[in-house]
Amino acid sequence: MNKVPIPTLERLATYLTALIELNCRKIDTVSSSDIEQATGINAAQFRKDLSYFGEFGRPGIGYDVEELKARLARILKVEQAQRVLLVGAGNLGSALIGFPVLKAQNFHIVAVFDNNYNKIGRKLWDLEIRDIAELAEVNTELQAQIGIIAVPATAAQQVACKLVEAGVKAILNFAPAILRLPEDVVVRNVDFGQELAVLAFHLTES
Amino acid sequence: MNKVPIPTLERLATYLTALIELNCRKIDTVSSSDIEQATGINAAQFRKDLSYFGEFGRPGIGYDVEELKARLARILKVEQAQRVLLVGAGNLGSALIGFPVLKAQNFHIVAVFDNNYNKIGRKLWDLEIRDIAELAEVNTELQAQIGIIAVPATAAQQVACKLVEAGVKAILNFAPAILRLPEDVVVRNVDFGQELAVLAFHLTES
Repeated sequence: MNKVPIPTLERLATYLTALIELNCRKIDTVSSSDIEQATGINAAQFRKDLSYFGEFGRPGIGYDVEELKARLARILKVEQAQRVLLVGAGNLGSALIGFPVLKAQNFHIVAVFDNNYNKIGRKLWDLEIRDIAELAEVNTELQAQIGIIAVPATAAQQVACKLVEAGVKAILNFAPAILRLPEDVVVRNVDFGQELAVLAFHLTES
Repeated sequence: MNKVPIPTLERLATYLTALIELNCRKIDTVSSSDIEQATGINAAQFRKDLSYFGEFGRPGIGYDVEELKARLARILKVEQAQRVLLVGAGNLGSALIGFPVLKAQNFHIVAVFDNNYNKIGRKLWDLEIRDIAELAEVNTELQAQIGIIAVPATAAQQVACKLVEAGVKAILNFAPAILRLPEDVVVRNVDFGQELAVLAFHLTES
């Protein structure tokens, strides 16, 4: 398979979400224009993105929703349950555990860590908060490959290093800091503060 | 003021967060290298970003943390409380209300809307869930300029249009759909599904 561009992968997730909804609404067949309507992504772009993964759809008929949904789910491995380590048991970590999209995409937080002794030993939802110092040891057993960072910016780099040392290969980072990690570790950054700041700044100007 | 690039605004939010933490730790003065250490953003980039907004710092001395923090907060208007309309009273909307970064940046959700009659009239945290059909009417009074979209992808475009008709100028969109809106409306997209999909795909390949 040719190397798939990251933007294509991002859009695949969007197509899959749209197809899940279309399937729920009992729609059997869609065209690339229908996908454009549902997602806002150009029909030609959709066809190009799919072309990385094989042949899809039938000319003049379109795409079978069930089949396309299943194939995309397989490509994105959503059937495979992913074990996730969460670092940071504050308000952000707590809110993240409740986020529906994690379970919807088969991501399961299997352990939570913090460095705050007032928190260690307590429960966050139904998980016991563990000491961050035990991360590597805990993950020898859990074998999670994904980590979520929900700690302050100044702690993020250290935490990221600890996760990588413990065997994590993919990180979702909510801290407003740029992480420096080995090339084989993939990092995705979500920074609400930035999003909100850009929105507020725009209102200022207008 | 020259037109400020969006990436500069995004980084300003990161600098501000770092400065708030440094201030909490009682650090009086920082250099651009200290900022690089805290945020991962190149020191030269930091200086360039600040240059859009005036003169900062003293050569050989660095930047006064309190002063720099205050000036960035003023630029990003964080002192100004922003009223926000939330559309979507599901798990996502509920988790968002609890997100600390909203209040930390002075964003206040003042109304929640949904189209589900089983939800309308109930409480989400301490807000009553209103009928989406009343959005424009409710906002004549509230005058919120910011909207958060936490509905399924297929409903996102309609909801965005309703928000804009009601006077909203800036939208934070969590639905995995690309919104088409007038040029004077700014939209920021956060799509966890995409982030998770890219992470999981990377694990597949390795």
